[in-house]
Amino acid sequence: MSNLTLRPATPADVPQILAFIRELAVYEREPDAVLATEADLLRDGFGPTPRFHCIIAERDESGATHPVGFALYFTSYSTWLGHHGIRLEDLYVTPACRGQGIGKALLRHLARIAVQQGCPRLEWDVLTWNQPAIDVYHAIGAKTQTEWRIMRLSGQALTALANQ
Amino acid sequence: MSNLTLRPATPADVPQILAFIRELAVYEREPDAVLATEADLLRDGFGPTPRFHCIIAERDESGATHPVGFALYFTSYSTWLGHHGIRLEDLYVTPACRGQGIGKALLRHLARIAVQQGCPRLEWDVLTWNQPAIDVYHAIGAKTQTEWRIMRLSGQALTALANQ
Repeated sequence: MSNLTLRPATPADVPQILAFIRELAVYEREPDAVLATEADLLRDGFGPTPRFHCIIAERDESGATHPVGFALYFTSYSTWLGHHGIRLEDLYVTPACRGQGIGKALLRHLARIAVQQGCPRLEWDVLTWNQPAIDVYHAIGAKTQTEWRIMRLSGQALTALANQ
Repeated sequence: MSNLTLRPATPADVPQILAFIRELAVYEREPDAVLATEADLLRDGFGPTPRFHCIIAERDESGATHPVGFALYFTSYSTWLGHHGIRLEDLYVTPACRGQGIGKALLRHLARIAVQQGCPRLEWDVLTWNQPAIDVYHAIGAKTQTEWRIMRLSGQALTALANQ
């Protein structure tokens, strides 16, 4: 896709990133789940020690660029492999631009970042009912880690354990 | 447990950490999976920008301390909550010291770190067949994220996508 550009996000992209995060939450059937603010994303993504990194996908049409998607990731760690990995938190393409390879282009971009940094793994979570996405992921060679489940401690249970 | 101490790991702990990682891999039925070296752990855990953090559990007996377990974690990011979280990578207690609350003490220590840093979530992965661990996790209020699966792109598939 010759008119597609992938570039690192800047602080000026924060309002668009938050809008994308909210659109993705609607798609994931959790429209009220986004509590993040622009101030949160500015602080955590663009300070001296960023907690995440973000890639913006832009399309150039008639000389004007407009954002069509994003990928947001942080670094994980594998004690088996003795190296950090890339953990994709959010991957999103606007509805009008789906089915045109933009999601795959973002994944390829992340794969290149992983290879450049010597990361042995690029990982992310997927909803079990999101078969269209799972099909894309399997098509590029990703494997579902069927033997593992994610455990989460949060809210009152987290506080209660801390206070014991 | 009055003779139990939890403390941040230092570079001097690296040989013990690697030994624990190998013991945990045997328990997880992947005895040959550990490729990490002491040099990897020194570089990634104890350099200017650590990729992970590690807590050592030690028992004091007759005036001598000896390590009985560890927890190793990194920080994740939630775009819904607009904050980093704590992601536990490895939790291990030596066989002779299990069933004495050391694993729970390590989890409580991580919960306190999470609360101190304002992290809304403490998360980790668990093997589906590891029911004794799952029971402990549920007992402290953790929830299995049944709707999510982990996807992994690695090895030749990762390189192939990067090279496209």
